[in-house]
Amino acid sequence: MPEASAPRPGDAAPPSVCRWAVLMEYDGRDFIGWQRQPVDSLISIQGLLEGAARKLTAGRNVPSITAGRTDAGVHASGQVAHLDFPADVTLSSATVRDGLNFYMKPHPVVILMARPVLPQWNARFSANARAYRYRILNRAARPALEVGRVWHVKSPLDVSLMQQAASALRGRHDFTSFRATACQARSPIRTLDQLDVRREGEYVVIETRARSFLHHQVRNMAGTLKLVGEGRWAPERVEQALAARDRRAAGPTAPPDGLCLTEVGYEDNPFTR
Amino acid sequence: MPEASAPRPGDAAPPSVCRWAVLMEYDGRDFIGWQRQPVDSLISIQGLLEGAARKLTAGRNVPSITAGRTDAGVHASGQVAHLDFPADVTLSSATVRDGLNFYMKPHPVVILMARPVLPQWNARFSANARAYRYRILNRAARPALEVGRVWHVKSPLDVSLMQQAASALRGRHDFTSFRATACQARSPIRTLDQLDVRREGEYVVIETRARSFLHHQVRNMAGTLKLVGEGRWAPERVEQALAARDRRAAGPTAPPDGLCLTEVGYEDNPFTR
Repeated sequence: MPEASAPRPGDAAPPSVCRWAVLMEYDGRDFIGWQRQPVDSLISIQGLLEGAARKLTAGRNVPSITAGRTDAGVHASGQVAHLDFPADVTLSSATVRDGLNFYMKPHPVVILMARPVLPQWNARFSANARAYRYRILNRAARPALEVGRVWHVKSPLDVSLMQQAASALRGRHDFTSFRATACQARSPIRTLDQLDVRREGEYVVIETRARSFLHHQVRNMAGTLKLVGEGRWAPERVEQALAARDRRAAGPTAPPDGLCLTEVGYEDNPFTR
Repeated sequence: MPEASAPRPGDAAPPSVCRWAVLMEYDGRDFIGWQRQPVDSLISIQGLLEGAARKLTAGRNVPSITAGRTDAGVHASGQVAHLDFPADVTLSSATVRDGLNFYMKPHPVVILMARPVLPQWNARFSANARAYRYRILNRAARPALEVGRVWHVKSPLDVSLMQQAASALRGRHDFTSFRATACQARSPIRTLDQLDVRREGEYVVIETRARSFLHHQVRNMAGTLKLVGEGRWAPERVEQALAARDRRAAGPTAPPDGLCLTEVGYEDNPFTR
């Protein structure tokens, strides 16, 4: 995901298609992630969505692009994608939503809202913000009600220390230390507009927002902040890890369970207009 | 569950046992309910708990009593039970909690806290309050993140009408119209200390509290209030249904998915002292 995300030539829908934006919620537990995979036995959210669109159009090809290609086990309450339906297929917003939801049953993936968009509107390249929530269940007992939806950390976390460490990561930085070694983004520079840590009873909640994130960036930040919360790292060490520009200088990658894509921002938001 | 719940002769632990109170969280989806069943293929929360206690004591018999015998599919975030361990088994609070949690794996049932209690303290008969939350997901799309944890109602609910209808049920009444026909309580009289309906975004949340409830009472109230929220029943009809003292006069039983036992109250609360 490049920092500058202006529409590119070729991103606009060709005149033969009718582009729809969809707002999605899913439980990432049972999926290998967003992206369709060559092996059919592995179920992806994209594969499920496009398969449902194919059924809804009696076998036509309906390609999709998403705002955030979430990894296996990562959830979404506000994911956005667009689908290019053949132009001769005319559907209402309710039919796109209900029809796709019907064909994606019984998988835990749903369309909350569907809206027709202009051909130059692009779920990925028109997005100017992504927001994620990372939830840690911080208590002795493993989760029963939130299995697969939280990172279970037994040792008590000091949230004020985590918040102090988080301040070093806010703003524009080279996030090489917090990016997956396999990350394909051209630049490691990102601007974190928000990174907050708060306690909500037994939960420690990390909220973060940026134009875009590097691969594993949120989970690597969560895994590092947890070390600070446990008292194993001084808050200052996070600033040093950032300055090192070396993945090995930061903490481990937190599990996907706790991560949820909560919102994608657009200047022209099809779901709020 | 009788309205008067003073300890009865025989409820106290015999001197040969050491009584422990446990605070529990569980996802009721995979269970036939709290109560142990004669058929072993059906998993109950009680069966799982007593089975774990048996393993923790190398095969000893450890009977349990709960504050609320939840039905199949009903969840708990604050259930309370007591366990009578043989007096010669000495365990710490952390060992009771962690040991039971270990042996209940991988089922979605956990002990949040374990505390030794006096022999006359009884999880069921010492309880002076039960609080339940009933959650309705009120939107077009079926749930993806909260599958099995909410009642999905598509038609928009008017919460102010539901709240208006709820006021007729608060206080001391004969709840025959809202009690399961199979309910075994001697008296249909109960005192509802709280019954509130509020909207939280896409959710409609019903919170209720009483010394005790009749069988299916909360789900029957939720199923009836939903008819009011949909505009199919005028709020006044709920008062009439109550006055009828006839199960057929009230609305249908709401599904167990939305129900969660959130708290059990005690004058002598072992978990807060």
